[in-house]
Amino acid sequence: MLRLNFEKLGGLVPAIAQDYQTGEILMLAFMNEAAWRTTLATGRATYYSRSRKSLWTKGETSGHVQRVHEIRIDCDDDTVVLKVEQVGGAACHTGFRSCFYRRIDGDGLTTVGERVFDPKEVYGE
Amino acid sequence: MLRLNFEKLGGLVPAIAQDYQTGEILMLAFMNEAAWRTTLATGRATYYSRSRKSLWTKGETSGHVQRVHEIRIDCDDDTVVLKVEQVGGAACHTGFRSCFYRRIDGDGLTTVGERVFDPKEVYGE
Repeated sequence: MLRLNFEKLGGLVPAIAQDYQTGEILMLAFMNEAAWRTTLATGRATYYSRSRKSLWTKGETSGHVQRVHEIRIDCDDDTVVLKVEQVGGAACHTGFRSCFYRRIDGDGLTTVGERVFDPKEVYGE
Repeated sequence: MLRLNFEKLGGLVPAIAQDYQTGEILMLAFMNEAAWRTTLATGRATYYSRSRKSLWTKGETSGHVQRVHEIRIDCDDDTVVLKVEQVGGAACHTGFRSCFYRRIDGDGLTTVGERVFDPKEVYGE
């Protein structure tokens, strides 16, 4: 078992999901040790939901899972990058491909991301 | 001033530095509100060092600063992506271009990153 340092952030490490083909950063979430083990064992990105206090396999209800193609860990073992194939094309619950769909322009924000689905159709109203 | 949600992580947000040309993820660090304001005001990536409990402008001693070309914020305003030009070519204190220079292969790790400098020459022994 590859061990990470979960001590520096109260039992969590940040996990960055990156499109394995384009390099686009899709989202950031957190993993506790159980989420990390589950991700390694299943090849599906599994995070820890701080609000629900439970494991959360991305796409478990929508089917929009993240297939893990490669995992990188950083120099001090406290952050991971998952190079993933995002099934359904969108990582963000708003329907955008990436959660980082807004760019800062001066004092405002410009939407630059690509919307892949209408969240009302996927999650209901 | 563009406001972020610093509440969810005890006054911090994760900040991902990504090469503005190649899309390679270089590092992850944290920002408090002062680091965020400083980054916006100066165009140089400034983080908050949890170990030193102080602001830390990347490259302030080595000259290997990160020039910020673009900033993205995520859907719930609690994570940022900085698209940066890494002066000196390496973001990692170990001399690698990226802190994420190790890939998981089975039960082990393979070094896949590119070493740009010898840290002994930059930081001394």
